[in-house]
Amino acid sequence: MKLTVAELAERIGAELTGEGSGEIIAVGAVKTAGPGEVTFVANDKHIPLLKKSQAGAVIVAKRVEGLGRPQLVVKNVDAALIEVLNIFAPKLKAAAEGIDPTAKLGQNVKIAKGVSVGAGVVIDDGVEIGENSVIAAGCKIGESSRIGENCRLDGNVVVYHNCTIGNNVIIQANATIGSTGFGYSFIDGSHKLIPHNGGVVIEDFVEIGAGTCVDRAKFGNTIIGAGTKIDNLVQIAHNAVIGKCCLIVSQVGVSGSCKIGDGAVLAGQVGLVDNIEIGAGTMIGAQAGVMSGTEPGEKLLGSPAMDIRDAMKVFGLMKRLPKMAESLKQLHKRMEILEAAENNKK
Amino acid sequence: MKLTVAELAERIGAELTGEGSGEIIAVGAVKTAGPGEVTFVANDKHIPLLKKSQAGAVIVAKRVEGLGRPQLVVKNVDAALIEVLNIFAPKLKAAAEGIDPTAKLGQNVKIAKGVSVGAGVVIDDGVEIGENSVIAAGCKIGESSRIGENCRLDGNVVVYHNCTIGNNVIIQANATIGSTGFGYSFIDGSHKLIPHNGGVVIEDFVEIGAGTCVDRAKFGNTIIGAGTKIDNLVQIAHNAVIGKCCLIVSQVGVSGSCKIGDGAVLAGQVGLVDNIEIGAGTMIGAQAGVMSGTEPGEKLLGSPAMDIRDAMKVFGLMKRLPKMAESLKQLHKRMEILEAAENNKK
Amino acid sequence: MKLTVAELAERIGAELTGEGSGEIIAVGAVKTAGPGEVTFVANDKHIPLLKKSQAGAVIVAKRVEGLGRPQLVVKNVDAALIEVLNIFAPKLKAAAEGIDPTAKLGQNVKIAKGVSVGAGVVIDDGVEIGENSVIAAGCKIGESSRIGENCRLDGNVVVYHNCTIGNNVIIQANATIGSTGFGYSFIDGSHKLIPHNGGVVIEDFVEIGAGTCVDRAKFGNTIIGAGTKIDNLVQIAHNAVIGKCCLIVSQVGVSGSCKIGDGAVLAGQVGLVDNIEIGAGTMIGAQAGVMSGTEPGEKLLGSPAMDIRDAMKVFGLMKRLPKMAESLKQLHKRMEILEAAENNKK
Repeated sequence: MKLTVAELAERIGAELTGEGSGEIIAVGAVKTAGPGEVTFVANDKHIPLLKKSQAGAVIVAKRVEGLGRPQLVVKNVDAALIEVLNIFAPKLKAAAEGIDPTAKLGQNVKIAKGVSVGAGVVIDDGVEIGENSVIAAGCKIGESSRIGENCRLDGNVVVYHNCTIGNNVIIQANATIGSTGFGYSFIDGSHKLIPHNGGVVIEDFVEIGAGTCVDRAKFGNTIIGAGTKIDNLVQIAHNAVIGKCCLIVSQVGVSGSCKIGDGAVLAGQVGLVDNIEIGAGTMIGAQAGVMSGTEPGEKLLGSPAMDIRDAMKVFGLMKRLPKMAESLKQLHKRMEILEAAENNKK
Repeated sequence: MKLTVAELAERIGAELTGEGSGEIIAVGAVKTAGPGEVTFVANDKHIPLLKKSQAGAVIVAKRVEGLGRPQLVVKNVDAALIEVLNIFAPKLKAAAEGIDPTAKLGQNVKIAKGVSVGAGVVIDDGVEIGENSVIAAGCKIGESSRIGENCRLDGNVVVYHNCTIGNNVIIQANATIGSTGFGYSFIDGSHKLIPHNGGVVIEDFVEIGAGTCVDRAKFGNTIIGAGTKIDNLVQIAHNAVIGKCCLIVSQVGVSGSCKIGDGAVLAGQVGLVDNIEIGAGTMIGAQAGVMSGTEPGEKLLGSPAMDIRDAMKVFGLMKRLPKMAESLKQLHKRMEILEAAENNKK
Repeated sequence: MKLTVAELAERIGAELTGEGSGEIIAVGAVKTAGPGEVTFVANDKHIPLLKKSQAGAVIVAKRVEGLGRPQLVVKNVDAALIEVLNIFAPKLKAAAEGIDPTAKLGQNVKIAKGVSVGAGVVIDDGVEIGENSVIAAGCKIGESSRIGENCRLDGNVVVYHNCTIGNNVIIQANATIGSTGFGYSFIDGSHKLIPHNGGVVIEDFVEIGAGTCVDRAKFGNTIIGAGTKIDNLVQIAHNAVIGKCCLIVSQVGVSGSCKIGDGAVLAGQVGLVDNIEIGAGTMIGAQAGVMSGTEPGEKLLGSPAMDIRDAMKVFGLMKRLPKMAESLKQLHKRMEILEAAENNKK
């Protein structure tokens, strides 16, 4: 793909400032983009970087004075960036429609039109797959699970039985949906697995990262709400109920029966104890350990988690602990001197 | 499956109190169960919830007065729950006995009777698989590994060579057993991999979660003791020796050559440094970072880990650090005033 | 494999002290090695263990007086150990050269000589694989990705499109290379995935553990530098650039656009916030949470991470917080007594 700056401006509905004849073949970061690349500035604080950039053009929300470089002025830089990335995306072969001859289908499987089922895929009895979904090579879909339209399951994903996946869902490679939860009762001297009769429900527009695991419920369903995005290597335990439009970053652990409100954001490596309720819009900083429920909109950090403002103070003071300890010791000495003074004696 | 309350009581040997003619078709949680569902109360503190429950029947350890709802009184609610869940478990098609024609077997492979080998499974030379084990689609079993009876390896599990898996073991999807450990020597300017001649031994009744990794030993074996249960996305490093009946929750990292005593419990995201010995029955709270060995029965929490009672105090005081710092500052000021007073001067 | 002690000494160029006729069949740890095993002492502090060892011979850097056991004296114990482990490594069948008939290759795929492509492997259009590489059963290689010479991809590894893997690279089972990064823009009320036009570059001699995920870049490449070793279940986010000869231990999370200098060591469960630069040779202790960049050679620990010496002090003082709080309370009381004293009143 090759476009002039002027053609690109037209494609994304941007207002062009400066020369439009330069050729653009890719998108690049502001620090590394070359003359054939378009870059972008979504945050004013990065404008200084622009001045040193070698980029052939720049997407901005407001014209930058004295830049001496073609500018594409748009209303929403984030949205324009997505458009531009799509324009210059590598052209990949479309997944072949139809069922690969090496795939193995059970009985009463319903595959809608436009579906692609890759090599070595195994689909058990009673599975339904909606229109235009792509089940990549090596995926296994368990009995009676249903996958909606326009979904994409990448290589070697495993979906167990009785899972329900909505429309426009992406599940990346090596993820596991519907594994049995970690529920045991200690009976007669050993841990007995509690049967997990429930399933998993993944709603529309959910995206799930590589290697992530979503356990099935004991009864009812583990639920991932519509529009929620989950990164790689995340653990979602049995009976968790995650709201809509949440962001759950890599290596987070959500324990059993946690309920997470809409729009919550859990940063990397966060852990939640089981059976707590996280309010809508809660933001939890990286590595936080959350031991109790939160109100909507709280911002937490730390292990154990606390209000982020408190946590930032505590983090600062932790580093000063050696000084505090020394100060305390000095006060003791000075106190002893005062107390020993003749006229302070009782 | 549909049973009357009276039939269900008989099936699980419960004493029925109240009307037995209602129909039950599933098990539900106390808060969400409907009239066609049986629920349970394993903990007295949940009895108040029962009064509001819509459940058609309830399993209890002791008759609850004034409940106005059929009660199934049993000796052990946990055990009864497992029975009931099994009764109402979704009926899945049994894994097909025999070897799928798309599976690929090496030489001198011994497959006992009743075994199911799924589509696309690859079994290398010298592997042995015991009676009634199920090797699901996409699994790879390396040379000379042995898998016992009544085991279940779910989709896409990889077992490397020379691993020994006992009887009644469950390994969930996308788990990896017997990968080479992370052992390097820095020689002549680069990290050289130390060959891992050892294997992995997984004893009877072990259960391993999805995406979990168990590394092989440098020499000897990495060992998971009988009855130990391991959750999803856990890392067990080379030469770790884990005792019997331990519980290891999701995203725990057990470093190289750690020895963990019988019955230890490691909560989610716990990390152990290498080469330490964790006493039998040790309980380690979520996200703890354990830097030295423990005595049997210790309870730890925190990173760095300490006695849980100390940790709870420390957690509370961490939040009070800003107040402590302020208090220290005030004391200094007051001290200066006193010291400056005429009659305290030397 | 069976060698006399004398033969073994000759094989590894060691100077033999003591009797050379004993037979050695394996390598063992100093505590557990039996008479048929050779052990080693790489660290002088383990010499006392040697005296109780049952090993049939021992590899040492300097002759130990009064040991009464054959000693193989070598210049570099670590290097000798690798040699000896290779000598006694279990003899595994070599991967079969050629392309398994159940593998599926796209168009314009270039497979060099000596390559082994296992059962059920799927290789998309335009992929190139260098000489003597082994692509184990169940791997999927995406469009236009290139894999160098002498690489080993173990069972069920997924490599997405446009990834470049150098020579002598090992990727263990169930790892994922080139998944789409976790990059979203919130537009018109929902999280929109930012297209990831970039790729992944894995340089020569990199080794990657089981279940590890390396995300592709938005533009440009996520890069793993030559000789870097990555353990199991590690997350490397989009656009991370990792230097040469780093060690990244299990369950580490490297966030987006982090830059890590050559030779850095990240211990288990470390997390880095995004967009920071870690200096060459930085050492980061287990579970540390790194919130800002580091200078070359820094040693960090703690969450939030700080200089390791400070962290060790802070860790010690955290445990003493209850005593500090009590001490502060006592000082207040004593202060009040002094202030109340008649002659301290103003």
